[in-house]
Amino acid sequence: MAPTPTREDKFSFGLWTLGWEAQDPFGSATRPRLDTVEAIHGLAEAGAWGITFHDDDVFPFGSSDADRQKAIDDLKGACDDTGIVVEMVTTNLFSHPVFKDGGFTSNDRGVRRFAMRKVMRNIDLAAELGATTFVMWGGREGAEYDSAKDINAALARYREAVNVLGDYVTDKGYDIKFAIEPKPNEPRGDILLPTIGHAIAFINTLERPELVGLNPETGHEQMAGLNYTAGLAQALDCGKLFHIDLNGQRGIKYDQDLVFGHGDLHNAFSTVDLLENGSPNGGPTYDGPRHFDYKPSRTEDSKGVWESVRANMSMYLLLKERALAFRADPEVQEALEEAKVYELGKTTLGEGESYDDLLADRSAYEDFDADAYFGGKGFGFVRLQQLASEYLMGAR
Amino acid sequence: MAPTPTREDKFSFGLWTLGWEAQDPFGSATRPRLDTVEAIHGLAEAGAWGITFHDDDVFPFGSSDADRQKAIDDLKGACDDTGIVVEMVTTNLFSHPVFKDGGFTSNDRGVRRFAMRKVMRNIDLAAELGATTFVMWGGREGAEYDSAKDINAALARYREAVNVLGDYVTDKGYDIKFAIEPKPNEPRGDILLPTIGHAIAFINTLERPELVGLNPETGHEQMAGLNYTAGLAQALDCGKLFHIDLNGQRGIKYDQDLVFGHGDLHNAFSTVDLLENGSPNGGPTYDGPRHFDYKPSRTEDSKGVWESVRANMSMYLLLKERALAFRADPEVQEALEEAKVYELGKTTLGEGESYDDLLADRSAYEDFDADAYFGGKGFGFVRLQQLASEYLMGAR
Amino acid sequence: MAPTPTREDKFSFGLWTLGWEAQDPFGSATRPRLDTVEAIHGLAEAGAWGITFHDDDVFPFGSSDADRQKAIDDLKGACDDTGIVVEMVTTNLFSHPVFKDGGFTSNDRGVRRFAMRKVMRNIDLAAELGATTFVMWGGREGAEYDSAKDINAALARYREAVNVLGDYVTDKGYDIKFAIEPKPNEPRGDILLPTIGHAIAFINTLERPELVGLNPETGHEQMAGLNYTAGLAQALDCGKLFHIDLNGQRGIKYDQDLVFGHGDLHNAFSTVDLLENGSPNGGPTYDGPRHFDYKPSRTEDSKGVWESVRANMSMYLLLKERALAFRADPEVQEALEEAKVYELGKTTLGEGESYDDLLADRSAYEDFDADAYFGGKGFGFVRLQQLASEYLMGAR
Amino acid sequence: MAPTPTREDKFSFGLWTLGWEAQDPFGSATRPRLDTVEAIHGLAEAGAWGITFHDDDVFPFGSSDADRQKAIDDLKGACDDTGIVVEMVTTNLFSHPVFKDGGFTSNDRGVRRFAMRKVMRNIDLAAELGATTFVMWGGREGAEYDSAKDINAALARYREAVNVLGDYVTDKGYDIKFAIEPKPNEPRGDILLPTIGHAIAFINTLERPELVGLNPETGHEQMAGLNYTAGLAQALDCGKLFHIDLNGQRGIKYDQDLVFGHGDLHNAFSTVDLLENGSPNGGPTYDGPRHFDYKPSRTEDSKGVWESVRANMSMYLLLKERALAFRADPEVQEALEEAKVYELGKTTLGEGESYDDLLADRSAYEDFDADAYFGGKGFGFVRLQQLASEYLMGAR
Repeated sequence: MAPTPTREDKFSFGLWTLGWEAQDPFGSATRPRLDTVEAIHGLAEAGAWGITFHDDDVFPFGSSDADRQKAIDDLKGACDDTGIVVEMVTTNLFSHPVFKDGGFTSNDRGVRRFAMRKVMRNIDLAAELGATTFVMWGGREGAEYDSAKDINAALARYREAVNVLGDYVTDKGYDIKFAIEPKPNEPRGDILLPTIGHAIAFINTLERPELVGLNPETGHEQMAGLNYTAGLAQALDCGKLFHIDLNGQRGIKYDQDLVFGHGDLHNAFSTVDLLENGSPNGGPTYDGPRHFDYKPSRTEDSKGVWESVRANMSMYLLLKERALAFRADPEVQEALEEAKVYELGKTTLGEGESYDDLLADRSAYEDFDADAYFGGKGFGFVRLQQLASEYLMGAR
Repeated sequence: MAPTPTREDKFSFGLWTLGWEAQDPFGSATRPRLDTVEAIHGLAEAGAWGITFHDDDVFPFGSSDADRQKAIDDLKGACDDTGIVVEMVTTNLFSHPVFKDGGFTSNDRGVRRFAMRKVMRNIDLAAELGATTFVMWGGREGAEYDSAKDINAALARYREAVNVLGDYVTDKGYDIKFAIEPKPNEPRGDILLPTIGHAIAFINTLERPELVGLNPETGHEQMAGLNYTAGLAQALDCGKLFHIDLNGQRGIKYDQDLVFGHGDLHNAFSTVDLLENGSPNGGPTYDGPRHFDYKPSRTEDSKGVWESVRANMSMYLLLKERALAFRADPEVQEALEEAKVYELGKTTLGEGESYDDLLADRSAYEDFDADAYFGGKGFGFVRLQQLASEYLMGAR
Repeated sequence: MAPTPTREDKFSFGLWTLGWEAQDPFGSATRPRLDTVEAIHGLAEAGAWGITFHDDDVFPFGSSDADRQKAIDDLKGACDDTGIVVEMVTTNLFSHPVFKDGGFTSNDRGVRRFAMRKVMRNIDLAAELGATTFVMWGGREGAEYDSAKDINAALARYREAVNVLGDYVTDKGYDIKFAIEPKPNEPRGDILLPTIGHAIAFINTLERPELVGLNPETGHEQMAGLNYTAGLAQALDCGKLFHIDLNGQRGIKYDQDLVFGHGDLHNAFSTVDLLENGSPNGGPTYDGPRHFDYKPSRTEDSKGVWESVRANMSMYLLLKERALAFRADPEVQEALEEAKVYELGKTTLGEGESYDDLLADRSAYEDFDADAYFGGKGFGFVRLQQLASEYLMGAR
Repeated sequence: MAPTPTREDKFSFGLWTLGWEAQDPFGSATRPRLDTVEAIHGLAEAGAWGITFHDDDVFPFGSSDADRQKAIDDLKGACDDTGIVVEMVTTNLFSHPVFKDGGFTSNDRGVRRFAMRKVMRNIDLAAELGATTFVMWGGREGAEYDSAKDINAALARYREAVNVLGDYVTDKGYDIKFAIEPKPNEPRGDILLPTIGHAIAFINTLERPELVGLNPETGHEQMAGLNYTAGLAQALDCGKLFHIDLNGQRGIKYDQDLVFGHGDLHNAFSTVDLLENGSPNGGPTYDGPRHFDYKPSRTEDSKGVWESVRANMSMYLLLKERALAFRADPEVQEALEEAKVYELGKTTLGEGESYDDLLADRSAYEDFDADAYFGGKGFGFVRLQQLASEYLMGAR
């Protein structure tokens, strides 16, 4: 049986996840709106620690100030009652028709200004609620047609927006960092900052890069056929893994938003292995929330919604259990050694060795037996993968 | 008919392209080795301006010093005879069994040292031949299995290697810059630095980032379902478009290396539009070689090889002709205006406007008519795409 | 400029295409409902010949009989006024929550019975309106999880449904044939009958296979990375190309439903070439409607909707013009000859030749010079592709 | 620990799998040729039951009759010594340059005749060795460019070839059936008969369709983003699952040929579940060989090759153990019941019910409460998937 989640596991859920009404491109909603207070209480009972939300999840676009405040007060009350934390807030710049060509990078300047105002208002709310991460998913920032969007101008506008917002939180003294969430496509044909890499590259062009990191989502990277765990590792390498969106995806297709572990299971195992155990040779680690951004399948009613909430946490905890055992096994350690995984932790040049020293080292080149790698010097990666598979499957 | 290429077009070809013997994962070579001198003369006759090569293309792995020198002299002679320029050199760290787990990031430290020596030797040659770009395609730097490679350690070793090489060219005073070529997969299950974005993110962690840029390849980005033109634009935005590999790919599958324009034609049009016309609102431009990295189909003999050489240049020149006409047409200009493509060039905040000013601007938010975007304020992107399509098809 | 469409071109549009309100998984509608009568008049003015619709497009799910009849009468009136033909009708078994696990293959037997009734009622309407094709897109017939659906049982139920419907139209004497529309995924993780091939295979298991053919959609095949034109050719080979859904898709991703020719342009060219010119060596041809099943981008308002209607027809007609010229050019004919495209039209065994004769023919094997194919006997496919590209681009 | 394989498991391996010399598109071989006799002995020791091979695996293309016979005698001897069965034979029509445009559908008629002769000779050998399945993978039957191949003519030639071969084995009285192996692409841009569906559709056009079935490969279907298990189920539904190629693939990319279970693990689980337990509601089953068609990673030496051999069988047996337990659990049975998986086994119409009866049944339509499916009547698929996941992971 899967272990029981506790608050120490730091599991959090977007209110839009369990709250998804299950409307999709070919069908209308199959579930009624889930009340915010009910959602928060249910999550607390299920063992979650935190919640996150878009402004429009809690108070519909265009709400009056009074309705908005009422909704916020309800949310606060439920959090107080349950001990649930608001760990992250984000802004919806993609649902309303006004954002049909994006928010920060809409070709329409009026929309860009409106988007910035919507975000600033929501940052104030995030600060008020104690959220320390502010996610920006620019799902509509993009185009279907190559001549519809001047990409260089769009990046400049994106940069302008994030720079202004960086000034804003700094001046206000908010304890908030931004996390950009990359996605390659859907709902636009091509989205700006399509992968972890593109987003980091962009962040490095900002005025306050230290304020901005990433919120990589499992399925989004996998929609580009990329290895999510490898992407997380590069984000860590750049000091940019600020937050995380765990879910499931079965290959390159539309955004499935399945339960974590219900998609690519081998990769889910290595994701948890990285998050819980860190890289084999050490390096930066992630200790933020384990945040789920998924959708309960449209076939499910309320019962299935709560099954899916629990399934996310169960899968994570099962994978954690397996990953800890995997690394602890001496046979695995020996296999990692034989596969030279630890040897990659050693610098290529020796301590104090210069390139001149390397050039003078005949054993490195002139006398190096390259041909020994034909028919020999195998890396033992298949054995390692089989060990990992057996741990993943609880067969050891 | 397609225009005739001239040296001013700065077309260059990898010797390994027309020289490909057409061996693939399921079949042996269908063509004999193409002599270097013959290749250079043929390229010159076809209207090319430059060549590029891997060390192993010109002198096989393990050549004696004498054989290596002979091969280099032959190449130099052919270049002298024809006026063909060696514009870029690169190193083969992927074909020999010694590199079966990569070069700079092989788990095997001996291999890493060997790889660095092989590259340094080849950099000396590049400098001697006057090449100013040195490409690094780390095609074997990666893994099939998530536990086989410590990605953080691998990135550290990659960084170490490039840092050392940066010191090397700097100390030697070589007029050489490095260009990393991203690829998502094949021949490894997942390759490090899989996209333009990941490579730029990595470059920003180097000691001499100014020395290192990108060599993005059409098909490599498209193998991840990404928009190549958008990737080039972001590389330009980051000042990192140092070199370019043009070819053709028909969707997410194995690396096809088709002739440029024989893959995604709409994207080829926008690529040439960007390279020749720049972004609609201005910004950084590329004026380096138009380099083709493709493979003449395995079905072809020598005649087909030369057809394919010419086809690359013909497609580029045709697309250039169409892209110039597209931008020059007043109707297109008007359509770009209507689609607010130029409005994206305007900053979102006005000159001197602070965020406080924006907050105080009721027209930006409180009085902004968001609902006007329902059933109105269409962007006209379909019309623009149709105009682009008609120009691409020579129908205007 | 693109040629002007006429009724002889037999262009038809789904009412749900121009009528799409532009709601997608991440955003609400950006356009109001388009009135049926207005749509039909607009299409007639634009040069279309026919329309198609789902029941729910014209009268919402659950309409009273009176409202339904009123809607039908309006549609009929508009058709009468304009001369527009209702060439195909189809049933919506995917939008309402009742169909959340499909229609004909829902795990819930009550839903399956309801679905059959809904379809039978709509077949009566199709017959009444003179439509001769009845399309079945089983978009919800599928699953996200492998154990959720017994595929063998699902295929049995699918078969049962189509068999009953086949009896129904036969007994009623309706002049209607069915056309199954394959799709690999979206909105389900995996859809039954995911490709042209799977659908034909299924049809061959029916009681009245002659009544059932295909309605292949460009983007649906391309979402599986398959070549749409090749799929159409196989459908023709099996006598199963009953109807066609033309649109545009840019690679393996969510269902884009772009304008025809705004996706993979090379493949659009070969599609039109096949439809208009037939296979080079002859064979079955298609002379049904040129039907567009696409979505005007969500960024567009009413003006853009009509631009997109016209763009579909313009692209088709431009491609037709180019394909006709391509085949008529003696240089192309010679290139096809050299590439042995016509030689594939000759049987492998000679007239009256038995396999014993073949076994006795030493020139076929023992004396056959296989090695001549190394370095020689190239097929000239690159040249042919370049000629096709130049025709496509109007450069010849 | 994984169970130990025995002959009763009917595991078989292609000699080209463990014998792969690990040459790929970007690198030369990393392993020497594996001796046939050694391979057979090793497989027997590892617990395998059978082998399969291409002609060229055992005796190189162009071998003299004497060399060929010697190689066959060696193979026979090893089989006799070990009890290993030759269960399937196949022909290499893709490696030699002569097949650069395919075998049965090469545009070159001489090549087509040569291919048929090569296959007929190999069928004789298959019969002599007692193989009862003859696989045809038409890996080179296809094209990179749409105008290079007349698909209708190609299908006609394919049909001609298989028809002649059907006559041949019938006349000879061979106890051999053919199994076509679909693949979407690689090494050709698009391959004929790209999926399970297309191949069945083609088989139905043959003169002796009963002689011809399928040999579906895990990775090949997954390269098109298709669900392998669902494909197997449809092949069973059509009575066409004659043989099977198990391996691993991680998404839509080049053909990885990983160990079975080292790719999409959820789908591997459902594959084994189908093969071992059959469909939940019964139906046709497969009891042929469990055949592995994979490649030991290029990083491995001989030790890793044998690790990979064992890993395939271990993964299968582990998954079998888990699948048996999954189905046997009363809680799973109850969940399948609740998800109405068994209800799909019931016909939609009642016993003896006509469509007129259905039309008269007001409870089926007029009085059916479709709206109950909004906010209710969830299918419980997420719970079922979580149960399957926990069984797969050995957590129950």
